[in-house]
Amino acid sequence: MDIEFLKEKTVQFRDARDWKQFHTPKNLAMALSVEASELVELFLWDDNTSSFSMTRTKNEQLQEEMADVLIYLLSMSDILDIDLSKAVLDKLEKNNKKYPVEKSKGSCKKYTEL
Amino acid sequence: MDIEFLKEKTVQFRDARDWKQFHTPKNLAMALSVEASELVELFLWDDNTSSFSMTRTKNEQLQEEMADVLIYLLSMSDILDIDLSKAVLDKLEKNNKKYPVEKSKGSCKKYTEL
Amino acid sequence: MDIEFLKEKTVQFRDARDWKQFHTPKNLAMALSVEASELVELFLWDDNTSSFSMTRTKNEQLQEEMADVLIYLLSMSDILDIDLSKAVLDKLEKNNKKYPVEKSKGSCKKYTEL
Amino acid sequence: MDIEFLKEKTVQFRDARDWKQFHTPKNLAMALSVEASELVELFLWDDNTSSFSMTRTKNEQLQEEMADVLIYLLSMSDILDIDLSKAVLDKLEKNNKKYPVEKSKGSCKKYTEL
Repeated sequence: MDIEFLKEKTVQFRDARDWKQFHTPKNLAMALSVEASELVELFLWDDNTSSFSMTRTKNEQLQEEMADVLIYLLSMSDILDIDLSKAVLDKLEKNNKKYPVEKSKGSCKKYTEL
Repeated sequence: MDIEFLKEKTVQFRDARDWKQFHTPKNLAMALSVEASELVELFLWDDNTSSFSMTRTKNEQLQEEMADVLIYLLSMSDILDIDLSKAVLDKLEKNNKKYPVEKSKGSCKKYTEL
Repeated sequence: MDIEFLKEKTVQFRDARDWKQFHTPKNLAMALSVEASELVELFLWDDNTSSFSMTRTKNEQLQEEMADVLIYLLSMSDILDIDLSKAVLDKLEKNNKKYPVEKSKGSCKKYTEL
Repeated sequence: MDIEFLKEKTVQFRDARDWKQFHTPKNLAMALSVEASELVELFLWDDNTSSFSMTRTKNEQLQEEMADVLIYLLSMSDILDIDLSKAVLDKLEKNNKKYPVEKSKGSCKKYTEL
């Protein structure tokens, strides 16, 4: 689906409840990070390998936490009038320069250490 | 843009660098939460009100951090074969029941406290 | 109380349950950040000002979340053999140079922006 | 060292810079979670096993990030007048009931799943 459509649905939900008043950039950033941590919590004591099998038993929770993150991101893009699609393409382009294929292939080093 | 298109672009970037080997669910959840915190950091000492004006002076950083969050979310949806659009619509539907308009209008209380 | 005493109590609790096997640095860092986010969640929709009054109504939760953060920090200092007291004093000394009083007094700017 | 002594040193550093005005509970919780994420970032692409060896090469950074977390926790305990030592002992006592040795020994399950 188009990301704009998902944003509209999110905004409709918010406005039906008159919640825009709470949606300051600071609050939304905090809310997003809280949801990101709930996602992390699902994998807390797993190994990298076992974190795959976990995703089967906790699949519903996982989808919900991922949705929560995206809902807050869409809410933030709305109040700040940021085009998320463009932001992603611009960032991939920037990362393309920070992480040239020949230097970063197969390496998990940060660009500052390449 | 379609969220599937953004996912494809993200996956192309990853595969050109042979990075799928690092993309376990556990690692991606961690990476996503680290990016979410970098977003939070931009608003650290602001008030809710001043957090709006900040978004003008730090607009580029803001867009980049939001893009980073979405890029990891797309990466996660790829390795776990989760349909993010569906996840968002399902979650909004579920939230619709948890937060009925008549109870939650104008209130920032959690559903457990309504 | 001495921070070493609190660490011993934490280690006793862990060892009685044979939990050291789960206490890798990566897992403990994740657990600590999850608890930090639970602390953040308590203040989610507050203003800076109202975040003070909240601390009265949610005082017990607040103490528990702060304790959780410290318990994981103590656990981490144990497995990595890090002296937390020394680490704090060293960091304050380092911050003293990064944030000279005459430049940073009354300012919430990061040292890179001073 | 006594945790009260570390708190005093932290408060002296803060007051010399007239920073108490920025230290609302909400801001300090955010700052603490940002530092917790910087700690997480050090272990981002490691396995649980390799996260031990990393701690040798990045030992100084590790100590600094852990110190940052504790400094914000001490700052928070100061403005909220919370006794961190008591909070830790109370929480260990509470965890003792939530995680009885006979049920939780050798298991990393959450108390809600025991």
